[in-house]
Amino acid sequence: MAKILYLVPGVGMDEEEIKRRERIANTFLTNDKSEVTVEAVEEGPLSIESTIEEFMSVPCSLKKIAEVQDRYDAIIIGCLGDPGLAPARELADVPIIGPFESSLTLASMLGEKFSIITVLDSIVPAIRRTLREYGLDHRCASVRVVNCPVLELGKSKDKVVKTFLNEAKKAVEQDGASTLILGCMSMAFLLVDEIVRSKLEAPVVNPAKASVKFAEMWASLGLKQSRRTYPRPDYRKLQRSVLPNITIGGK
Amino acid sequence: MAKILYLVPGVGMDEEEIKRRERIANTFLTNDKSEVTVEAVEEGPLSIESTIEEFMSVPCSLKKIAEVQDRYDAIIIGCLGDPGLAPARELADVPIIGPFESSLTLASMLGEKFSIITVLDSIVPAIRRTLREYGLDHRCASVRVVNCPVLELGKSKDKVVKTFLNEAKKAVEQDGASTLILGCMSMAFLLVDEIVRSKLEAPVVNPAKASVKFAEMWASLGLKQSRRTYPRPDYRKLQRSVLPNITIGGK
Amino acid sequence: MAKILYLVPGVGMDEEEIKRRERIANTFLTNDKSEVTVEAVEEGPLSIESTIEEFMSVPCSLKKIAEVQDRYDAIIIGCLGDPGLAPARELADVPIIGPFESSLTLASMLGEKFSIITVLDSIVPAIRRTLREYGLDHRCASVRVVNCPVLELGKSKDKVVKTFLNEAKKAVEQDGASTLILGCMSMAFLLVDEIVRSKLEAPVVNPAKASVKFAEMWASLGLKQSRRTYPRPDYRKLQRSVLPNITIGGK
Amino acid sequence: MAKILYLVPGVGMDEEEIKRRERIANTFLTNDKSEVTVEAVEEGPLSIESTIEEFMSVPCSLKKIAEVQDRYDAIIIGCLGDPGLAPARELADVPIIGPFESSLTLASMLGEKFSIITVLDSIVPAIRRTLREYGLDHRCASVRVVNCPVLELGKSKDKVVKTFLNEAKKAVEQDGASTLILGCMSMAFLLVDEIVRSKLEAPVVNPAKASVKFAEMWASLGLKQSRRTYPRPDYRKLQRSVLPNITIGGK
Amino acid sequence: MAKILYLVPGVGMDEEEIKRRERIANTFLTNDKSEVTVEAVEEGPLSIESTIEEFMSVPCSLKKIAEVQDRYDAIIIGCLGDPGLAPARELADVPIIGPFESSLTLASMLGEKFSIITVLDSIVPAIRRTLREYGLDHRCASVRVVNCPVLELGKSKDKVVKTFLNEAKKAVEQDGASTLILGCMSMAFLLVDEIVRSKLEAPVVNPAKASVKFAEMWASLGLKQSRRTYPRPDYRKLQRSVLPNITIGGK
Amino acid sequence: MAKILYLVPGVGMDEEEIKRRERIANTFLTNDKSEVTVEAVEEGPLSIESTIEEFMSVPCSLKKIAEVQDRYDAIIIGCLGDPGLAPARELADVPIIGPFESSLTLASMLGEKFSIITVLDSIVPAIRRTLREYGLDHRCASVRVVNCPVLELGKSKDKVVKTFLNEAKKAVEQDGASTLILGCMSMAFLLVDEIVRSKLEAPVVNPAKASVKFAEMWASLGLKQSRRTYPRPDYRKLQRSVLPNITIGGK
Repeated sequence: MAKILYLVPGVGMDEEEIKRRERIANTFLTNDKSEVTVEAVEEGPLSIESTIEEFMSVPCSLKKIAEVQDRYDAIIIGCLGDPGLAPARELADVPIIGPFESSLTLASMLGEKFSIITVLDSIVPAIRRTLREYGLDHRCASVRVVNCPVLELGKSKDKVVKTFLNEAKKAVEQDGASTLILGCMSMAFLLVDEIVRSKLEAPVVNPAKASVKFAEMWASLGLKQSRRTYPRPDYRKLQRSVLPNITIGGK
Repeated sequence: MAKILYLVPGVGMDEEEIKRRERIANTFLTNDKSEVTVEAVEEGPLSIESTIEEFMSVPCSLKKIAEVQDRYDAIIIGCLGDPGLAPARELADVPIIGPFESSLTLASMLGEKFSIITVLDSIVPAIRRTLREYGLDHRCASVRVVNCPVLELGKSKDKVVKTFLNEAKKAVEQDGASTLILGCMSMAFLLVDEIVRSKLEAPVVNPAKASVKFAEMWASLGLKQSRRTYPRPDYRKLQRSVLPNITIGGK
Repeated sequence: MAKILYLVPGVGMDEEEIKRRERIANTFLTNDKSEVTVEAVEEGPLSIESTIEEFMSVPCSLKKIAEVQDRYDAIIIGCLGDPGLAPARELADVPIIGPFESSLTLASMLGEKFSIITVLDSIVPAIRRTLREYGLDHRCASVRVVNCPVLELGKSKDKVVKTFLNEAKKAVEQDGASTLILGCMSMAFLLVDEIVRSKLEAPVVNPAKASVKFAEMWASLGLKQSRRTYPRPDYRKLQRSVLPNITIGGK
Repeated sequence: MAKILYLVPGVGMDEEEIKRRERIANTFLTNDKSEVTVEAVEEGPLSIESTIEEFMSVPCSLKKIAEVQDRYDAIIIGCLGDPGLAPARELADVPIIGPFESSLTLASMLGEKFSIITVLDSIVPAIRRTLREYGLDHRCASVRVVNCPVLELGKSKDKVVKTFLNEAKKAVEQDGASTLILGCMSMAFLLVDEIVRSKLEAPVVNPAKASVKFAEMWASLGLKQSRRTYPRPDYRKLQRSVLPNITIGGK
Repeated sequence: MAKILYLVPGVGMDEEEIKRRERIANTFLTNDKSEVTVEAVEEGPLSIESTIEEFMSVPCSLKKIAEVQDRYDAIIIGCLGDPGLAPARELADVPIIGPFESSLTLASMLGEKFSIITVLDSIVPAIRRTLREYGLDHRCASVRVVNCPVLELGKSKDKVVKTFLNEAKKAVEQDGASTLILGCMSMAFLLVDEIVRSKLEAPVVNPAKASVKFAEMWASLGLKQSRRTYPRPDYRKLQRSVLPNITIGGK
Repeated sequence: MAKILYLVPGVGMDEEEIKRRERIANTFLTNDKSEVTVEAVEEGPLSIESTIEEFMSVPCSLKKIAEVQDRYDAIIIGCLGDPGLAPARELADVPIIGPFESSLTLASMLGEKFSIITVLDSIVPAIRRTLREYGLDHRCASVRVVNCPVLELGKSKDKVVKTFLNEAKKAVEQDGASTLILGCMSMAFLLVDEIVRSKLEAPVVNPAKASVKFAEMWASLGLKQSRRTYPRPDYRKLQRSVLPNITIGGK
């Protein structure tokens, strides 16, 4: 059994939506006694649709992780772009899971090439950079968009699903995708994968599900990120400067 | 909850060892109600230490999978080299999981580069070919060996552990590995990872654990291999020739 | 002068067709005293149009190679997918030649990128996997299909030639191919390359010709596959299990 | 002529050191009328020796860039790791230059492979991730360290130079480097390149010089980062959340 | 300040055009006291539109470089294909700059992918080979042509500009280019970049400007090509054979 | 049967040595009626040990090829570096064969990785550039040298063989080579491969043999280089400038 924090790195969601996501996230668990808590940072972007917003979200996430990591067996960074995955892994002594890395990894097993269908053109270059950073750009058939801002996805669900299906079919037939990835956590919590599944020849990966599954897997295997890739920082130095209130490491 | 078959593609193991592995495999599950059955094929190699033995094991595995797949939610090919992963995925309508692919995938998330520590030099070129086939050779720091045949691993456990540790340290310090992979299922079921864990700076991936976790994950997510990469075969043609007794597809 | 076996790894061909292929194959030789024998395995698939059939063909090929290799200077695995090339190279002490590897290699010299035009969509993923295994996927412009089962190619020759030409032109003009490869041995023995040659700006590689030429080349140079990539197996162990009747190695 | 801001993304430097760097940076200019201003952010890390500190520095840099970009023709992010290069390029309408990208680019022209000699092991994985993100990892022969924290480089100059020379020679002779890169801005402003130059067979790239040269080049050519890779953000949304006081874009 | 030779490796240009280019090239300098001299070789191709002409131009360039290098701080090989860049760098003790390498390098910094728009299809394969030789083919979105011979570009300027714009838009929208490169020095000296700039969303790199900037940069930094990649030749042997009159090295 | 020209692109060989090579080259043929003529250019380098000499050799080779190609079925460029392979392929209407490309190609089939053992360090960077141009650098385990100038190889044969063996063993054991390539035509015509064969676990490729075999293969298959990669030049333009006396194309 694992206690998992799903950390929302932004402030655009009301308490009701956070509770809704928590309820849904808990249905993704494999072990009955595992538990997902969804929590948002105190400060940060309304939503993440640019590299700027990705980076602006990171310090708040790191502060939160420093404070609460003792209470969890794994922490998910609740944004498709995995903002701050590497620094969070350096900082924490528990597994840090990114929904994008989780989805790419799972999709890479399911078939030869994947396509990512995300919200807006403005975030596509950031996705490509992360694919290169992860060494997985050679598995990517294409990145396509539904052309709808994050905060309007809920209101435009039917239209989004229709556009998603359309783009997904092009990804499979024109771009050669074997697998599709929901390219936004709001689509993930609308369970778009379950709606479109029967209409597509290719499996659809939901990043919320993938990240919860990997968080539970790592925690139950007693594995965490390698200190050879994510070196333990000098906690005392961090306390003297950018993270004055953390206790980890320097406890 | 998932019913998982762990299929041993060889005949070198006695009933006792199979039962021992079944007991151990069941401890790797996340959900209490999931269940792993370990079963061996009727005919096949004594152990797999060459590409020849890999290929000789595949027809028997495929026949078995054709017969029993209706009874399982996922099937693991119980050999580190994933022999027959691609044809099994074409053949089956349930998830087919390879311990090698599972381990590489998990290791790729834990750190930048992995090293595989396997049994004998004779199997290293097959491992390299599979790394290229999976598009993961750029993540591999090295493949090293403990220089002990599969069927003698049990008897030489202490020596194997010692050599493993030695090679693992070289992999980390000289080759730049961030993560280590147990390169043989017999090492995996000796739980070598748990013995060496505290003596290494890098996480150690156990392919038996990894494959059980992925089998359970795929099954519980309702995902299976993409038909775009693993096309549905012409079952009638297969029945007329190489798989006369199968019922799947052509039921 | 070289004695070459062209081994058909399936049972779908009658004696007449085998004799026809033998006559044709002998016209591909460079040295007058060289000789190609065409022979089929006793058991195996009707034709190879799936990864399943590729793998089901291998044990029979290996048994045959083990039995007859003493009588030949080189052995060609007579299927475009090179099924069992790696294990056959481990097993044998004579050169083992694959028509696919031969064609890719020759095509790589003739121009920057090649396209493969094969029979059916169901075999395309296997072709892509082999391209990655051979480290040649970056030279591949595209894989296209004539959409005709292997066993109907002979009957539909005119239609196949027409479709081939059409797909070949798209490969050159849309996909950027410099060279074309006949993607099936049955097309090769219909000498489709000679029919289309004058209608295409790009050279067409016939895998039957390429494989006979390389078999003769290796044999006359006294070269064979490197034991560093294809290690000599433990013949005694093979005799005790999967290849009980072989004499090689353990003679 | 170009007005260039060299922005120090940390607070570990006193006013005197900032003035010293400004004097030195101005000697790197090609045009007499160009001018470099060195300025530090108000808040941020003491020095950057971890991915955590890289990310913690970015919001302050972005705020500063948003405020002052109207007054400059180009802005250099004054840290070897180029922290925040991508978001700064999205945000700004003037060229944003990274010393790491500048150095890699220049080094790639001077010879086949480069080695980077940086301060501490703790920053090496971040360097490798950035190399992959920039698509330049295949040109990197090695990353080596002098094993001295940034803030002690000045005090240990002689020892650092000696270690640098030693590591540089190993990079050339053992790792195959053709060119060397000073892997830290503090080494750059100690002009380590000029000290070691005569003792090495390979050219040494100074990232401070490289970044000033590229800033001046871009500015004088009227070029800036492509909006196809660094899309213009929704400035109104940024003003409503993470960058409330910026005027750019939404002026 | 730097004295730069821009060496035209062909004989197709009259004195007036050479003077015109010299006037223009001098406007590309950053430092007021720097100076570009444009000079043509005595013998060579009329223009370079094939790999044959590229290679035929090299000996004359090398002879010229051997004679005059003492009088310059940097030498630019004035053809987009950088013919003879590697041998010139071995031969010379001053920086040798290629407009193609300069443009690719600069374009790689400005955005993720570049497209090259050149004159004729006949030169495209040479461009692709050079991209591979430079290790930059993974950054190339496409190579497109305006379909106009070099020597007619001046006369057909309006048509060329129109076609260029058309191809540039396709490169950005269909091929995914972030940046465009003028693929011919004659287009560069027609300043096509300045004409099309306002009509394109992507920056346009002018290879004449890029090469002058890099020549000035290398010269002012005191850098030149690494002798590890461009080894010093045996000058005495060259004097005894292919370069009898050179004095460099063997002075 | 094929008439093959082996063209020596240099003037360092006396008539006797040319005749000796012709006798040897004729023993490499597969067909009794084929014939190799060895001829040298009139002008050119003494030997090729630098990129400068490679390029200086090309115009003479091209002139010769233009004159004599009507009399041959295939032409080999008799230098390991394949100087001028691409322009010769554009120019000629008969197959142009490079010993380096032939050897790499053959070595790629024989095993996973090859090492090249050449004469001097001064030619190693040129070899690496060509490997990248051919897209085969990922198959190269290492390039090593015997450290002996080309023109002294004959006199120092025993020492060269000893050093070769030593370097070859390091290539196999330390660098992971499966196959070795004689990295110089003079070593090839000393038949170093036959001397060392029995002392090495890895096959040794002789570039003279490889190139003769491929020349005969291409000629007998009626194949030549693709005009998509090696476009037909404008022969009239070439006649007006760099190749005034050629008749081909413009006959």
